[in-house]
Amino acid sequence: MDIRHEIPKHDIEQLYAKALEYITRSREMIRAALASDFEVRRKPDKSFVTSVDLRVEEHLRGLIQRDFPEHGIIGEEYPPTNPEAMYQWIMDPIDGTEDFVQRLPTFGTILALHYRGEPIIGVIDHPMLDLRVSAAFGRGAYHNNKCVKLIELEPAAIDGSERVVIPARANFIKYSHDGHVFDALVRRHPNHRIYRTCFAHTCTAIGATDATIDYGTAIWDIAANRILMEEAGGKFSVIRAWDVPSFGQVTASIMGKPILVDQLMKYFPAIHAVKLTD
Amino acid sequence: MDIRHEIPKHDIEQLYAKALEYITRSREMIRAALASDFEVRRKPDKSFVTSVDLRVEEHLRGLIQRDFPEHGIIGEEYPPTNPEAMYQWIMDPIDGTEDFVQRLPTFGTILALHYRGEPIIGVIDHPMLDLRVSAAFGRGAYHNNKCVKLIELEPAAIDGSERVVIPARANFIKYSHDGHVFDALVRRHPNHRIYRTCFAHTCTAIGATDATIDYGTAIWDIAANRILMEEAGGKFSVIRAWDVPSFGQVTASIMGKPILVDQLMKYFPAIHAVKLTD
Repeated sequence: MDIRHEIPKHDIEQLYAKALEYITRSREMIRAALASDFEVRRKPDKSFVTSVDLRVEEHLRGLIQRDFPEHGIIGEEYPPTNPEAMYQWIMDPIDGTEDFVQRLPTFGTILALHYRGEPIIGVIDHPMLDLRVSAAFGRGAYHNNKCVKLIELEPAAIDGSERVVIPARANFIKYSHDGHVFDALVRRHPNHRIYRTCFAHTCTAIGATDATIDYGTAIWDIAANRILMEEAGGKFSVIRAWDVPSFGQVTASIMGKPILVDQLMKYFPAIHAVKLTD
Repeated sequence: MDIRHEIPKHDIEQLYAKALEYITRSREMIRAALASDFEVRRKPDKSFVTSVDLRVEEHLRGLIQRDFPEHGIIGEEYPPTNPEAMYQWIMDPIDGTEDFVQRLPTFGTILALHYRGEPIIGVIDHPMLDLRVSAAFGRGAYHNNKCVKLIELEPAAIDGSERVVIPARANFIKYSHDGHVFDALVRRHPNHRIYRTCFAHTCTAIGATDATIDYGTAIWDIAANRILMEEAGGKFSVIRAWDVPSFGQVTASIMGKPILVDQLMKYFPAIHAVKLTD
């Protein structure tokens, strides 16, 4: 049995309402920051971090700790809170900080809630695009306030015109030697795009693209994807997981229309089905 | 001497004002269409066309013919008007129709004016993003209403972190056998993205990405790029041109920060500098 049925429906409603309240607040903070100015620096791994990433995560952590002091929190910018708790809020305050720094509207905020390792709420919010996707267990998936039901692809429609978002080649060689997988994918799925960040997830969640592959992503990057897919009628599969020293676990995963996800899985012969550890 | 100096400054002002008036109108039409519904069909080459593409091009053609009956017009959806005229308006009413159909905000309208083969006005407008880049000869380049001056890259900054937008691999094999060029580019510029459509051009015009490569594009796809780059302090170079039977000329080109454009040109050993034929 799916352990998520243990949670009273009313609790899910309430937690979902809270998640949407938090994301509304993060959107306001990010919009205000874009209208003024903010500090940018590079982390040791050369990725960007800004004063806004830090401030938004701090603020959301504060709200969650006020409302649910016993819950755990995992975020990109600060160490975990209550790592043993059954409920874990997982967030990336700004996914795509490089895009945010360049004021490209494709960055977003990711917020999810997992219960005993299973996702029950997932939200991705794009403040500059006035675009939000969200889902809660048993409640459906939403594109802004409109319910989303993905339409499965006909097998014959996987003819090269299918829209697949693939990570940059660098992702396939950062933690593994899988450059050849990228090379095969771009040949066999010529209508590919390479978006960075959660904009790819949002596009697939609303059916604007048919599938997205992630490669070498941290838990906060994909914490919302599975519930978004489950509730929208799509599929989310973890391909592989690695432990990266001094960083933690990273995974490769595919989300999208089920038939295409199944087909894309075939590029990864050594599939290690893993349970995401919260 | 640059023949564009032949045109009185006052004329350029007036033509530029008209171009912005036309693009304001196309934005209104596209937004209205998105708020209601529209027809979608596939062209013989399997690309999408909608009733909005057609209506916007018709409308802009009507405005141009009313204001400048002696000017030429080249657009994606209809045959050329006055092909011998010195002034040629060049447009793609919706570049990225597939994105438009999916309501991905990255599609845009391209409008340019060339004088005796040289670009004097270029505009790219993204109705869903409230984002417009525009330039006129001797007048500077603008991001909405803010003047844009690109900051040249330091040679040492081309270390893999440079942001390069590359076309999908399919573009490198559609009209030529250059898949190996794609393979080399994605290896040596790991921080690449693959955006479809003029969103890539806009990102490079405002400095949010460092360069964009186009491969196998029609004149209306890149008609605005050179003047945008010249006026913003960037560089636009045509790499190659092909005559495609029953379609016309397509080109490969690079736009972006000059030092990076020069470096990217080296991937294309057989460079045929060509003049775009209007």
